[in-house]
Amino acid sequence: MHCNDLYRNEMTASRRHIHKRPEEGWTEFETTAWVVEHLQALGFEVLCGREVINPDFVMGRDPKKVEQAQKRARAQGVPEALLERLGGYTGAVGIWRTGRPGPVTAFRYDLDCVLVQETDAPGHEANVGGYASERPGLMHACGHDGHLSVGLGVAHWVKDHADQLCGTIKLIFQPAEEGTRGARPLAESGILDDVDYIVCAHIGSGCPLNEIGICHSGFLATTKIDVRFEGTPAHAGANPEKGRSALLAACSTATMLAGIPRSSRGDTRISIGRIDAGEGRNVVPAHAMLQIETRGSTEEVNRYMVDYVERIVKGNALSYDVKSSFEKVGEATVLTADQEVTDELTDIARRIPYIKSVIRNDHISGSEDCTLLISRVRAHGGKAGFFLFGCNQNGHHKGDFAIQDEQSLPEAFDMFTEFLCRRNGVKA
Amino acid sequence: MHCNDLYRNEMTASRRHIHKRPEEGWTEFETTAWVVEHLQALGFEVLCGREVINPDFVMGRDPKKVEQAQKRARAQGVPEALLERLGGYTGAVGIWRTGRPGPVTAFRYDLDCVLVQETDAPGHEANVGGYASERPGLMHACGHDGHLSVGLGVAHWVKDHADQLCGTIKLIFQPAEEGTRGARPLAESGILDDVDYIVCAHIGSGCPLNEIGICHSGFLATTKIDVRFEGTPAHAGANPEKGRSALLAACSTATMLAGIPRSSRGDTRISIGRIDAGEGRNVVPAHAMLQIETRGSTEEVNRYMVDYVERIVKGNALSYDVKSSFEKVGEATVLTADQEVTDELTDIARRIPYIKSVIRNDHISGSEDCTLLISRVRAHGGKAGFFLFGCNQNGHHKGDFAIQDEQSLPEAFDMFTEFLCRRNGVKA
Amino acid sequence: MHCNDLYRNEMTASRRHIHKRPEEGWTEFETTAWVVEHLQALGFEVLCGREVINPDFVMGRDPKKVEQAQKRARAQGVPEALLERLGGYTGAVGIWRTGRPGPVTAFRYDLDCVLVQETDAPGHEANVGGYASERPGLMHACGHDGHLSVGLGVAHWVKDHADQLCGTIKLIFQPAEEGTRGARPLAESGILDDVDYIVCAHIGSGCPLNEIGICHSGFLATTKIDVRFEGTPAHAGANPEKGRSALLAACSTATMLAGIPRSSRGDTRISIGRIDAGEGRNVVPAHAMLQIETRGSTEEVNRYMVDYVERIVKGNALSYDVKSSFEKVGEATVLTADQEVTDELTDIARRIPYIKSVIRNDHISGSEDCTLLISRVRAHGGKAGFFLFGCNQNGHHKGDFAIQDEQSLPEAFDMFTEFLCRRNGVKA
Amino acid sequence: MHCNDLYRNEMTASRRHIHKRPEEGWTEFETTAWVVEHLQALGFEVLCGREVINPDFVMGRDPKKVEQAQKRARAQGVPEALLERLGGYTGAVGIWRTGRPGPVTAFRYDLDCVLVQETDAPGHEANVGGYASERPGLMHACGHDGHLSVGLGVAHWVKDHADQLCGTIKLIFQPAEEGTRGARPLAESGILDDVDYIVCAHIGSGCPLNEIGICHSGFLATTKIDVRFEGTPAHAGANPEKGRSALLAACSTATMLAGIPRSSRGDTRISIGRIDAGEGRNVVPAHAMLQIETRGSTEEVNRYMVDYVERIVKGNALSYDVKSSFEKVGEATVLTADQEVTDELTDIARRIPYIKSVIRNDHISGSEDCTLLISRVRAHGGKAGFFLFGCNQNGHHKGDFAIQDEQSLPEAFDMFTEFLCRRNGVKA
Repeated sequence: MHCNDLYRNEMTASRRHIHKRPEEGWTEFETTAWVVEHLQALGFEVLCGREVINPDFVMGRDPKKVEQAQKRARAQGVPEALLERLGGYTGAVGIWRTGRPGPVTAFRYDLDCVLVQETDAPGHEANVGGYASERPGLMHACGHDGHLSVGLGVAHWVKDHADQLCGTIKLIFQPAEEGTRGARPLAESGILDDVDYIVCAHIGSGCPLNEIGICHSGFLATTKIDVRFEGTPAHAGANPEKGRSALLAACSTATMLAGIPRSSRGDTRISIGRIDAGEGRNVVPAHAMLQIETRGSTEEVNRYMVDYVERIVKGNALSYDVKSSFEKVGEATVLTADQEVTDELTDIARRIPYIKSVIRNDHISGSEDCTLLISRVRAHGGKAGFFLFGCNQNGHHKGDFAIQDEQSLPEAFDMFTEFLCRRNGVKA
Repeated sequence: MHCNDLYRNEMTASRRHIHKRPEEGWTEFETTAWVVEHLQALGFEVLCGREVINPDFVMGRDPKKVEQAQKRARAQGVPEALLERLGGYTGAVGIWRTGRPGPVTAFRYDLDCVLVQETDAPGHEANVGGYASERPGLMHACGHDGHLSVGLGVAHWVKDHADQLCGTIKLIFQPAEEGTRGARPLAESGILDDVDYIVCAHIGSGCPLNEIGICHSGFLATTKIDVRFEGTPAHAGANPEKGRSALLAACSTATMLAGIPRSSRGDTRISIGRIDAGEGRNVVPAHAMLQIETRGSTEEVNRYMVDYVERIVKGNALSYDVKSSFEKVGEATVLTADQEVTDELTDIARRIPYIKSVIRNDHISGSEDCTLLISRVRAHGGKAGFFLFGCNQNGHHKGDFAIQDEQSLPEAFDMFTEFLCRRNGVKA
Repeated sequence: MHCNDLYRNEMTASRRHIHKRPEEGWTEFETTAWVVEHLQALGFEVLCGREVINPDFVMGRDPKKVEQAQKRARAQGVPEALLERLGGYTGAVGIWRTGRPGPVTAFRYDLDCVLVQETDAPGHEANVGGYASERPGLMHACGHDGHLSVGLGVAHWVKDHADQLCGTIKLIFQPAEEGTRGARPLAESGILDDVDYIVCAHIGSGCPLNEIGICHSGFLATTKIDVRFEGTPAHAGANPEKGRSALLAACSTATMLAGIPRSSRGDTRISIGRIDAGEGRNVVPAHAMLQIETRGSTEEVNRYMVDYVERIVKGNALSYDVKSSFEKVGEATVLTADQEVTDELTDIARRIPYIKSVIRNDHISGSEDCTLLISRVRAHGGKAGFFLFGCNQNGHHKGDFAIQDEQSLPEAFDMFTEFLCRRNGVKA
Repeated sequence: MHCNDLYRNEMTASRRHIHKRPEEGWTEFETTAWVVEHLQALGFEVLCGREVINPDFVMGRDPKKVEQAQKRARAQGVPEALLERLGGYTGAVGIWRTGRPGPVTAFRYDLDCVLVQETDAPGHEANVGGYASERPGLMHACGHDGHLSVGLGVAHWVKDHADQLCGTIKLIFQPAEEGTRGARPLAESGILDDVDYIVCAHIGSGCPLNEIGICHSGFLATTKIDVRFEGTPAHAGANPEKGRSALLAACSTATMLAGIPRSSRGDTRISIGRIDAGEGRNVVPAHAMLQIETRGSTEEVNRYMVDYVERIVKGNALSYDVKSSFEKVGEATVLTADQEVTDELTDIARRIPYIKSVIRNDHISGSEDCTLLISRVRAHGGKAGFFLFGCNQNGHHKGDFAIQDEQSLPEAFDMFTEFLCRRNGVKA
C-alpha cells in the first residue's frame, strides 16, 4: 500500500525515541514538544496546550506533577517558549489545509504512558533494541508511542502527497488517554467542531499481527472517580470517642459500592480499585482515599452507577461524621460508529495485501475516551469509525508489552492514509 | 415490724388477682381500675390517666393496642366513666394529705407485665396456687404485680395509721415501666414537683428471700429507639434498578451501629435486638424495622450513643435512597440516690428481724425508669433512695418466674412503712 | 378451532371452583383431589402424590402446613383413601394410552396459588362472579387455576377424540410452581423419561387477550435459598460479650450478598427479599432468617451466584461465631425450546382465527420451573416448546389479578389440542 | 541529691548525640553500639543483640530494614565485630556484679525513635541547640533518647559508687519499645529471671517539669496485629467474576472489627489504624493490608478482642475467597506494681528537694511493653515499680516534642540512684 521504507523507518525511530522517555498523562511535555517540532517542520499549522485544551473540563491533573514535568522537560531541552505557549497543558493538533474544497478529516493519536515498570528481561524487544524506558516505573505499555509515531508518519505522508489531497486534515495528538481524562477537555476546546470524519484506532487489543479489527460499537461508558474522606484524628486508646474515622467511612463506602443493584437496562460494572487510609496503628484515621470506576453499556446505565456512587459517598460521610469529596477524574462514553465509515474501513483493510484477517469486534468491554471525540463529531453530523491493528503481545499494561513496531505500525499507516485517499483524495 | 396477717393476706390476694390478668405497658386499664378502686375505697385522693400523664412525653404507645385494651377492660367490667376519665392513658397516684405539717413522701410502684408465656409446669407457684396468667403470651414475670400489691398494702396501712402521720404521702402507680416508657410522661405531669422524699424498689434482682439490697448509684442510662426505613419496591429479577432496598439500609445500619466507637468517658452499650424487613423473596424490600437500645454509664455517654444512632440512620437513608424515621420509644437515666435516704434505708433494713442480709449494690447494669422520677425530685432539692427486696426466683422475664408473695411482699411493706414512720411520723 | 361451548363452560366452571379454594405449594390436597377425580372419571390412568414426586428432591415444603392442609382437605370431603395414596405429597399425572403407535406428548399445568389477599373491590371479576377466594391471604393471582382447568378441558377433549389419536398423552398437574419447587422432584420421579414432546404455557405474562407469545429461549435460571443463623443469646446490657448475634451475621451477609461481583459471562441477579432476626430489644439475637434468590441468564452464572452465597454465609458464620444453615428451597433453569416445536406452535397460533397477534418473546426475565421438566425431556432427545396465552390483567401476584376465563382459556385449549392433532393425530 | 554537673552534662551530651541519629525499632545498631561502648568503658559486663533477644519471640521486625540499618551503621563506623556479635538484633544489658551479697536490681531504658518529622521551627529546642535529627521522618519524639542517657548516667554513677553497693545491678537497654515489640523477646531470653527488683520509667506523659508520677497499676494490655489478604486480580471491566477482591475483604473486616461487642468484664479498644489495598483503579485488588490494635483493661478482655479479630479475618477470607494472614507484631500487658516498690518510689520522690509535686497516676490508657518485663520478674516473686518524671512538652509523638534535658534527666537519675542506695546500698 502506501507505506514504504522511508515512512516505516521514520515511524520506528520515532516510536523508539518516545519509548525511552515515557510521560504519564498531563505531563507529556517532552512528547508534545517532539510532536510539535515534527509537525511544524513538515509545514503543518499547529495548535497546542491551552489552545486545544479547555481547562474547565480537565480531570485528573496533578499540578505538582505538572510542575515537576515542566522542570524535567526544560532540563531535556524543551524550549522555554514552547513551555510558555503550552500554558501548563499538553497535547497538540496539526492542521493541513489543502485550500481545495473537501471534507475535514480528523485522526486521533495519544501521547501518554502507563505506570508500569518495563521488564529487564534480556530478550524483551526494547532491551534487545536498546530503547527501553529510562524512567523507572513508567513505560509505554499500551502502545501510545506507536500511535503517535503513526500520526507523525501520516503527517509526513500528507505533506508528501499534499497536491493530491483536498479538504482539511487534522491530526490530533491527545494527552492523558489513560484514565480517560484528555478527550473531554480536547473536545470542549471546539477543535472538532468542523470535522466531517474522525477515525480512531488502537494497537493490539485482541488483534495479532496482520489482523485488523473493525469496531462499530462496543466499549463501555465509564467514569473514573476519586473519593476522599477527612475525619478527626484522636488517640485510639485514650479518646476513641473524639475520633471520626475516615477509614471506616471509606471501608463502608467500598462495601456499599459493590452492592449497587444490577440494572435491567444494560451491563454495569463497579470497581473499587484502590483504598489508602489512616496515619498510624493507634490513631483514629483522619484521611482516606478511594479510586473508583463505574462502567455501563449505555451512558444512561453508567450515569445510574455514578449517581449511586455519589449518594453512597455522601451518606457515609453523614453516617461517620466526616467530610467527603467526590471528584470525576476521567470519563468516556460508548462507541457509536457510522456505517459508512465502518464499511469503508472494512473494505480498506480487506484490500491491504499483507493483512490476513479482518474481523468485526463490537464487544470490547474496556473503555476509550476517543469515544467522546467521536460523540462530539457526530453531534453536529460528522461521521466516525474505529479500528484495531494487530501486534503480537503479552498483554497491555504489562512490563513485557511489545509491538513489533516495524511490522505493526505500517498497518495503521496504511489504514489512515488510504482513508485519506478515499475521502480527501483529489478526484481525478 | 409493721406487717401483720391482715396486710400480708391482702397483698397476697391482690397480687394473685392481678397476676391472672396481666396487661402490657400503656394498656393497664383493668389494673389501673383495680388500683383506683382500692385507693378511693381507702379514702385517698386519686389522680389517674391523663391527670398524671403528660401525653407530649408519651413514648412507645400503640393506639391500636390501647383501643383493644379499652374494649377488653369494658368487657371485664371496668366502668365506662373511669375509662373516660383515664382518657386513653393508664397509671394512678393516690394522695393522702394528713393536714399536719411535714414532708411530702412518694413511693413508686409499677403496673405492667412482660411479653412472656407463663410456664405450664405443674409445680410452678402460680399453677399450684391456681392463679396463673389467663392471657397467653403475657405474664407478670418481672414482679410488678407484687410491687403494686405492696403499694395497696402500704395504702391500707396509711389509712389505718393516719392519725400518727404528718405531711403528705403520694403512692405512685406508674404504667409502662417495661421499655422504660412510663416514667418520663409521669414526671412531666408535675405530680412530683412538691415531693421531698421518693423511695423506689424492685423485687428480686439479685436478692434472695430475706435479703435487702441498697442501691446508691448504678443502673445505666438508656434510650430505646425504633427505626423504620421505607424504600421502593420492584421486581428483583425484572427491574432491580428501580428498587430501593429498605432491607439493605437496615442491615447496613445494624452493622454500623455495632461499630459506634467506645468512649473513654464511660461504659456504653448498643443493642440491635430486632430486625424485620422485606415482603417476599423476589421483591426489592420496601419496608424495614429495627429495634435498638443504647446505654451509658452517664447521661452524657448515652447521649453520645443516641446521637451516633441518629446520624447513622440518616446516613444510610441517604446512601440507599430510602426514607427513614427515628423514634425514641423509651428512656431512663442513671440512679443517683441521696446519702441521707440510703443510710436510712440501710438502717431500716438492718433492724428488720427476719432480714438476714443487707447488701450494697451500686453496679446494676440494667435500666429502670424510676431514675427519671428520682431525677425530677432531686432537681428541686428532694431526696431519693432505692432498694431491692428478696425473693427466690429463676430469673426475671422467664416463664417460671415466681416471688413467694407471702414472704417477699412483707419485706417491702416493712421498708416503706418504717420509712414513713421515720419521715412522716408524728413526733411524740 | 377445537374449543366449543361445552369445553369452554366446563373450563370456566372448573376454574371458578378452584379459584374459591386456593392452596399454596405442597398443600394442594383439595386441588389434587379435584384433578384426580376428573381424570379418573374421564378414564385416564392416574398417578398422584408419592407416585409422581420423588421426596429426595422436594424443596420448600413445611410438614406442619402439610398436616394442616390434610386436615382441611379431610374436612372438605377429600376421601381418606386418596389422602393416604398421596402420602403427604400433591400433584397428579393423567395418562392416556391410545394403544396406537405414536409419540408420547406431555403438557404441564400447575396447581398452587400465591400468598396474596384478593381485593374486595366490587368490580373485581371474581367478586362480580361470586367466586372470590374463601381463604384470607391466599389467591390464585398467577392464573394457575386457569392453567389446570385448561388441563382438565384438554383431558375431556382427549377422551372425546380418543379414536383419532395415537401414541400416549400425559397431562401433568404439577404442585408448588411458585417458588420453583415442584418441578425438580416431579422430574426426578422419572415420569417424563419416555416423553417425546413437552409443551408448557403460562397465561398473560405480557400478552393481552387474543395474543399468543412464543418463547424459544429466555427465563433466568434461579435458585431460591433460605439461610438461617443461630447465635448465642445474652443480656445486651449486662453481658454483651457472652452473646453471638445471629442478627449481625445476617445483616453482614445481606450486605455482602448485594456485592457479589457482576459476571461478564451473563446477566445475574441477587435478591435478599426478607430478613427476620432477633427476639427482643435488649437481648443479643439468637435467631436470624434470610430469604434469598439468585438468577442467571445461564445455569453457569446462576451457579456462580449460588456458590458465592454459600461461601458468604459460611464466612459470616465463622466471623460472628454462629451456626448457619443453607437450604435450597426452589430452583429453575433457563428455557431452551426446540426449533421444531417453536415453529409448530407459531404456525398453530397464526391459524387460530380469533388470535390477532402472534409475537416472539425470548427475553422473559422471570423464572419458571417447567424449564426443569423441559430440560429432563430434552436430556434424552425429546423436544419442547413454550407459549404464553393472552388475558387482560393488572399484573400477576396482585389482588386484582383477573383472567377473563371464558375468553382466555380457549386460547390455550386450542393451542394444546391442535398440537395433539398435529403430533398425535391418527394419520388418515 | 546524687546528680551533679558531671552526670548532668554527660547525660545531656549523650542524649543530644543520640537525638541527631534516631533509629526506629529493631534497627538501633548505632544506638546499641553507643550504649555497648559506654558500658564496656565503665567496666560493665555487657550482653547484647542475640545474647539478650530470643528470636522466637521477635515481632514486627522487617529484615530488609535491618539490612539497610546494618549498612548504615557500618558507614557510621560501627565496628564489624560488634555487628556480627549482635547477629542482626539490637538491645543491650549492662551487668554490674558487686561481689557482695544483695538483691539483683534491674532498670529498663529504651532505644528506638518514632516515625515523626522533627519540626524546623527555629525556636524548637533541638534547632536552637543544633542537635536536630539528621534523618528525615525519624525523631526521638517519645524521649527514649533521654531514657537511655539516664541509663548511661546511672551506669557511670554505679561505677563511681561501686564500693558502696552490694548485690547485682542490671541496666537493660531495650529495643523496639514503639509498637510494643521488644520486651517480649527480651524477657524470653531469660535475662530477668534472677531479678529481685525492677523499676521502669517514662518521661513526661502527663507530668510537667519537677513532678514525679507514681504508677501502681494502669496501662492497657494491647496486641498489635498486621493482617494481609491476598486475592485474585482480574480486569474489573472485562472479567469481574474472575477477580477475588482483597480490598473488599479488608474493608468488610474493618467494619466488622469496629463492631466487636463491648465487654462487661472490662474496658476494651479496637483500632483499625491503616488500610492499604489495591493496585490500580481498574483491576480487582489482589493485595490488602490492615494495621490493627486491640486493648483491654485486663489480659482476659484483650485476649477476647484478639480472638474476635482472628475469627473475623478468617471469616472474611472465606466469604471473599481470598487468603489471609494474621500476624501479631507487638504486645504489652497491664501494669501491676508492688506496694513495697510503689511506696519506696513515692517516698524517694517526696524527698527530692527540687521535685515540687508527687502524684499517683493509676489510669494511663496507653500501653507500655515494660509491663511484660515486670510480669516476668513478678512471675518468680520479684517486685516492680514504675514512675513518670516531668518535662514540659507539647505532646509525645509530635514534631515539636522537647524534654529540657538538663532539668528533666536528673529527675530520673536521682530516682534510680536513690533506689539503688536503698536496695543495693552497703549497710553501714
